[in-house]
Amino acid sequence: MHALETAAVVTVGTELTTGHRLDTNGAEVARALVNAGYSVREMVSVPDDLQAIVAVLAELLSRRALVIVTGGLGPTHDDVTREAAALVVGRTLMRDPAVEAALSARVSVHRDPASAISLLHQADVIEGARVLPATTGTAPGQLIEYAGHTLVILPGPPHEMRPMLHDVLRDRVASAPPVTLKCVGITESDAGHAVLPLLTTYPTVDLTLLGGPGEVDVILVSTTGDDVELTAAAHAARTALGDACYSADGSSLAATVIDIAIEREESLATAESCTGGLVAAALTDVPGSSQVFRGSVVAYANETKSAVLGVDPALIEAHGAVSEAVAVAMARGALRIPGATLAVATTGIAGPGGATPDKPLGTVWFAVAHAEGRTTAEMHRYGGDRTMVRDRARTTALDLLRRSMLDS
Amino acid sequence: MHALETAAVVTVGTELTTGHRLDTNGAEVARALVNAGYSVREMVSVPDDLQAIVAVLAELLSRRALVIVTGGLGPTHDDVTREAAALVVGRTLMRDPAVEAALSARVSVHRDPASAISLLHQADVIEGARVLPATTGTAPGQLIEYAGHTLVILPGPPHEMRPMLHDVLRDRVASAPPVTLKCVGITESDAGHAVLPLLTTYPTVDLTLLGGPGEVDVILVSTTGDDVELTAAAHAARTALGDACYSADGSSLAATVIDIAIEREESLATAESCTGGLVAAALTDVPGSSQVFRGSVVAYANETKSAVLGVDPALIEAHGAVSEAVAVAMARGALRIPGATLAVATTGIAGPGGATPDKPLGTVWFAVAHAEGRTTAEMHRYGGDRTMVRDRARTTALDLLRRSMLDS
Repeated sequence: MHALETAAVVTVGTELTTGHRLDTNGAEVARALVNAGYSVREMVSVPDDLQAIVAVLAELLSRRALVIVTGGLGPTHDDVTREAAALVVGRTLMRDPAVEAALSARVSVHRDPASAISLLHQADVIEGARVLPATTGTAPGQLIEYAGHTLVILPGPPHEMRPMLHDVLRDRVASAPPVTLKCVGITESDAGHAVLPLLTTYPTVDLTLLGGPGEVDVILVSTTGDDVELTAAAHAARTALGDACYSADGSSLAATVIDIAIEREESLATAESCTGGLVAAALTDVPGSSQVFRGSVVAYANETKSAVLGVDPALIEAHGAVSEAVAVAMARGALRIPGATLAVATTGIAGPGGATPDKPLGTVWFAVAHAEGRTTAEMHRYGGDRTMVRDRARTTALDLLRRSMLDS
Repeated sequence: MHALETAAVVTVGTELTTGHRLDTNGAEVARALVNAGYSVREMVSVPDDLQAIVAVLAELLSRRALVIVTGGLGPTHDDVTREAAALVVGRTLMRDPAVEAALSARVSVHRDPASAISLLHQADVIEGARVLPATTGTAPGQLIEYAGHTLVILPGPPHEMRPMLHDVLRDRVASAPPVTLKCVGITESDAGHAVLPLLTTYPTVDLTLLGGPGEVDVILVSTTGDDVELTAAAHAARTALGDACYSADGSSLAATVIDIAIEREESLATAESCTGGLVAAALTDVPGSSQVFRGSVVAYANETKSAVLGVDPALIEAHGAVSEAVAVAMARGALRIPGATLAVATTGIAGPGGATPDKPLGTVWFAVAHAEGRTTAEMHRYGGDRTMVRDRARTTALDLLRRSMLDS
């Protein structure tokens, strides 16, 4: 077995160690490292504290080929990552004239001399470091080679960090980066049953199943760096998973729905009760969605279902708002949105209130209506709290749009 | 200065160190620890690997009063946190009869004997550990006292972990937990100018400003545990921040809007273009929002703005879809939703396409319309990419609803 090089990720910020912010940078750096063929052995978050940063960097740098640190490069007094890194490698910080000149150009618009001085502090570079220029912010990143190991320090703001991260890893392409098959409408256990037999055929491929709310990621990794066998295994796995697998390139479910709609020349609309706009928000999160997304009616109150979507109040009276009949009428009502050719509707009980003995919490009715007349409906029951029910209902609604386009 | 007890958080799972999942558990545990008066010195994520877990636990337990670990307690072969913890404290794992009996009751519904055996594995308890019963899942947590330090291992699923975490920290109430004043519509620098002078009046209070997209958290911490002075400082800070501060109890902006609407007996609606349903989704995320939220029209296409919201096509033709006139017409159109008394509209350029020289990317027009006739509008320009523009526009739209109710 081919041993992967090991890496560690360090994220600096008291907002992380107090739980005020999620460590999104750490996850993004880890993903990039894995795709570049590294094995990430630990991710560590520490507060903005010189001693804490020094301790963790010294320890990790002694045992990992590559350590990437984000955060703590800004101009304020609690930005001390630069100083910590210099202490760890035992080198001095020197003002870099080119970086200083670039910063000075920005500083001139500031009036406060104290803030000018602290901004220029960002031009301090560790002796012998490679400067990673700041294309979108003020603080440059730095890459330091030390005793056969590499330490990279990057700024915290994601849009500043990202280009430098890709710059650092550009020359480092894994021979066989992992393949993630994203699946929906299948349980983790069924995905396992479909894919596990392939491990015998492809002995150099290792498999991880990762279940999320309503989705399963099937992750294939080569244990030897054999790209050909990994590609063959991924192809076989995709076939075994069938329609449940919606992407192999990291695309989200919403992006997949938008892509298929563009290809099939469908125009989408949604009518949402319990999902409250989540389906529309997911679709419009995709750049270019305006090509195919026409609009949505969030009909939270029954009067809104009738007035805006044209749902007959007698239907609601007879079957209740959470029913097949109302879901179908909502989906057909969404086709009133000009140009829409395909609509999905959601109506359900997300909780905490509203449950009845025959319609327990988590009951959601879905309907899909096509402009040319076809309509389908189905009911799902989800466990969990309000957020989980709404998230799973969003996923199912997107998947029903996807499957209805694949079927047609 | 009163020294806080130190703690560390460890989260176990290869899905974390590959960047496939964000470490939401780590942040939740850190928040609970800070509120219980601990200083969290590091948060570490490691893969599902016995040796890696042993190494990090041994090291952290030697220097922290309390180490809380989540994940790796399930029934599968890669769940090895229990074994790692037992190795670190040098004690044996013993099958706990009470836990085994509870698990067996569940196991009987499983047919596969192998899965029954691995499920029962979850009844293995470290010698001398206090068992934290599983109320919502299968694996119990464990609390181990070791050489004057405390090690707590908890299951990974948040709804299983949460009650055990609160059980462990219940007896540990900080004399003066930090106060977070959540603010919107104010810059980090202006919030600092408003609050910093108070530090002279309240010398035992320390201040952190935490800027997010469109929001600022002002966090006040007592350095001595003096609850009276902290409360007084928080009161003074809230006064200094004025309307910009919307909550002091952790409530989200959307929850604050819903609360005020309930109190003022307003019924809310939204008309969304660039936010694409995000405002409606945020409002309906709040339990009980159905009391005051009537619905929303996501009018992504111009024809939808006209057909569903009644925006005059001539207005769009004359001013463009991203304009004060169209925002106002959209907000008034949203008042067509039955029962709505207050509506907000968004129309803007989230990118990547659609920008023009006089309407650059990030330009968003907002309008608020009241059923009794008042209408206001304003324009904002946001930096950043599509996601950032949409998120900031959502925050502004919610804030405009809030401020318009406070003013009335």
